Amino acid sequence: MTQSTPLHRELAPAALLSSYEALLASDLEALGVHQGHALGELFDLLGRCNPFYRRRGFDRRGDHDGDPFMTLAAQPLLSKDDLLADQREHPPFGTNLSCPESHLVRLHQTSGSTGQPLLWPDSARNWEGFLESWELVLRAAGVTASDRVYVAFSFGPFIGFWGAFEAAQKLGALTLSGGAQSSEQRLDQIVAFGATVVVCTPTYALRLAEVAESRGVDLARSAVRVTLHAGEPGASVPAVARQLEQAWGARCHDHAGATEVGAWGYPAPDGLFVDESRFVVELRDPEDGSIVPGHEIGPTIREGELVLTNLARPDRPVVRYRTGDLVRACRPGLRAESDLAVGARPDARLWLPGGVLGRLDDMFVVRGVNVYPSAVDGIVRQVPAVVEYRAEVLRDRQMSELRLRIELQPDLDDAGRRSALEQLERRFREALHLRVPIELVDAGTLPRFELKAKRFDIRERGDR
Amino acid sequence: MTQSTPLHRELAPAALLSSYEALLASDLEALGVHQGHALGELFDLLGRCNPFYRRRGFDRRGDHDGDPFMTLAAQPLLSKDDLLADQREHPPFGTNLSCPESHLVRLHQTSGSTGQPLLWPDSARNWEGFLESWELVLRAAGVTASDRVYVAFSFGPFIGFWGAFEAAQKLGALTLSGGAQSSEQRLDQIVAFGATVVVCTPTYALRLAEVAESRGVDLARSAVRVTLHAGEPGASVPAVARQLEQAWGARCHDHAGATEVGAWGYPAPDGLFVDESRFVVELRDPEDGSIVPGHEIGPTIREGELVLTNLARPDRPVVRYRTGDLVRACRPGLRAESDLAVGARPDARLWLPGGVLGRLDDMFVVRGVNVYPSAVDGIVRQVPAVVEYRAEVLRDRQMSELRLRIELQPDLDDAGRRSALEQLERRFREALHLRVPIELVDAGTLPRFELKAKRFDIRERGDR
Repeated sequence: MTQSTPLHRELAPAALLSSYEALLASDLEALGVHQGHALGELFDLLGRCNPFYRRRGFDRRGDHDGDPFMTLAAQPLLSKDDLLADQREHPPFGTNLSCPESHLVRLHQTSGSTGQPLLWPDSARNWEGFLESWELVLRAAGVTASDRVYVAFSFGPFIGFWGAFEAAQKLGALTLSGGAQSSEQRLDQIVAFGATVVVCTPTYALRLAEVAESRGVDLARSAVRVTLHAGEPGASVPAVARQLEQAWGARCHDHAGATEVGAWGYPAPDGLFVDESRFVVELRDPEDGSIVPGHEIGPTIREGELVLTNLARPDRPVVRYRTGDLVRACRPGLRAESDLAVGARPDARLWLPGGVLGRLDDMFVVRGVNVYPSAVDGIVRQVPAVVEYRAEVLRDRQMSELRLRIELQPDLDDAGRRSALEQLERRFREALHLRVPIELVDAGTLPRFELKAKRFDIRERGDR
Repeated sequence: MTQSTPLHRELAPAALLSSYEALLASDLEALGVHQGHALGELFDLLGRCNPFYRRRGFDRRGDHDGDPFMTLAAQPLLSKDDLLADQREHPPFGTNLSCPESHLVRLHQTSGSTGQPLLWPDSARNWEGFLESWELVLRAAGVTASDRVYVAFSFGPFIGFWGAFEAAQKLGALTLSGGAQSSEQRLDQIVAFGATVVVCTPTYALRLAEVAESRGVDLARSAVRVTLHAGEPGASVPAVARQLEQAWGARCHDHAGATEVGAWGYPAPDGLFVDESRFVVELRDPEDGSIVPGHEIGPTIREGELVLTNLARPDRPVVRYRTGDLVRACRPGLRAESDLAVGARPDARLWLPGGVLGRLDDMFVVRGVNVYPSAVDGIVRQVPAVVEYRAEVLRDRQMSELRLRIELQPDLDDAGRRSALEQLERRFREALHLRVPIELVDAGTLPRFELKAKRFDIRERGDR
């Protein structure tokens, strides 16, 4: 995928977006004015009311000639560890609050897969901002008040798809909670209620399709016309998207977000757009740590870790937050780098081809090749005979090992099995120049997942 | 309990209620004007836009001298079977809709324990009305913006405590979803997050207390100061309320509602108040089917099936709906029946002592005594040594049989067990004049419940 992709012809019609986002998308200069104004207000609030950011210097920051982007650039980057440490020292919520605790109305927590869960409370104003981001995601996926939106999510303390559910209701769509249901019950409900939109992780959409097939339910004949995903890179990976669209007979869309940031990415062809009306973007080079501000990204693709400042959740914002997401970014609506200096253009939206390419934490090196779990996923999903898989990575600073266990469709004959294995081996050679050992396991033996899949068993060499 | 209970001294302070409800509570005449106006508007809407009620005569109803209460009294009673039949004939939702289908934003379904589940869609206006009822429930229980409200509910397609969750958020309280969590996880969260209010069924509150005890967690030392219940009569049954309050070291409150009606009852001392600002009450005599309108209920207690017309969910209302709930009702703030004619009084709220006494469907007759499951519950809960129980009823038109299986606290010695059995037998004799066979079973063998308990195994004689 390169910048020459004629993306500007495939963009969602501007009518789907509000005039506000349409304005921002069409005019870099207006975007800069809007972001500068919002940043200035945010920094002022943080300096006055937010103990966490006051300690980080916001009460004594220079005025940088009144340029909020310079103030931003002078601020240290923020990591999840910083937020966790603050919360540990100031339980239960930490000091990143610009409002009294009594203003808080929602509480969520991250899954804490890497240890201590991070608690994330939101004020009414923050939660409203979160839902506004989600409304853009839904509208960009073509969801309207006439849709019936089924959210196949457990509605627990994780932020997950709470935003999708509530924003769809605000939008006027008919919303259905799929909490506390088995996969079989969810399928029955999707069909019986005539759901037109299904929201879940890519992994779980494939799981539902598998259950449907085993029960003789033809999802392509259901009323579902859109599936909307997040939590994993899946729906931006072409092979996964194809598999999802074939299984559901519906158009699949991706979005991206995080508990502590919000829903920052909305559906784009073959990837994501960044909602720059509510998020200020920077890219960090994973090698040398250098930073490129979002307004310096033009038609040339740049790669790096996404660093975000959110504008719509001011009572607990993140400023220069290292998301850990590796992305490639460009503005394909611009023709030349010089367009950046000019400002106004018909479509200047920031596009991430392939969406989130992977989590920086999850990268490993196999025989000199940088490999992300999402890349492995993209390769495996090109072989439709694969029902489920599990990857084992023994990671090492010098050289990691990667092995795969796969489950094939149960009705496959010997020739089909051989062919699937050969295809997989060839595709790994072609895409990553790697020979990956693949083991075939019995149908139904690998774990299935409801939210984010944990298919990668990554161990550090020396771990016991 | 009689009308002489000095309830007017125990009422929640009027400041807890909005001025709107305070007005209605204080003045029967104003209540009549408000209800008459709202009924007139509702009937007009139904005659113009609601196919279900048009078929039931609302497009050609006489104007009854312009008296909407006379129009109401001329309307046939409505049963759940009527709604189910309509939905079966006009899938998926039936014809009880006063708005276009595209206006619907929420969908729920009843549990369908008696067969086909009833689907219940709500428009934005309806859902707002539902949340307003819930806000009154929360305020009457003393919940404020400073509270942290933990909703121990699975957040599935049942309406359950969705309203509590969203209304608490609207009220400005910090809300925590307990969906998709084990009882152990919920306990940890309640303690760690410093929840001050816990919302769940009475059965599940006792279950959580049992789990807490087995893990050495002292709930009385938690921050929880209020528990709020529904789904079962429990919290209005004094013995159950005492057990709940001892286990949690918190004040317990009841409320009542149903998917198809809304949250019609809010906490009162030893029972419920009816929210007459949003619900018009009638009482139906279970014997002769005669009806007493709510505005004819004075200080004398009357017993009957609660029949409700809701005013705040006009896009799918129920008019003269037989709830199946047996209640006793009075207005203890009035001194004499003649007060009814006068109108204005300092507190004219409709009180249901004991809350919902039982479901008419669930009543059975044992040796000439009318018995409701809630009465059995109230007796069993007077004996703290009982951890869980299960009742078997072999029901017959002439004479049913009732047997009990009970589980006692595991650390009880022989004498304690004998004493508990003797207490139970004595209390059944005293309260119901019945000798009930009781069998002791091993600890942990009876089923536990998360939502509504199903402790009564009621079989009709002749069932196979």
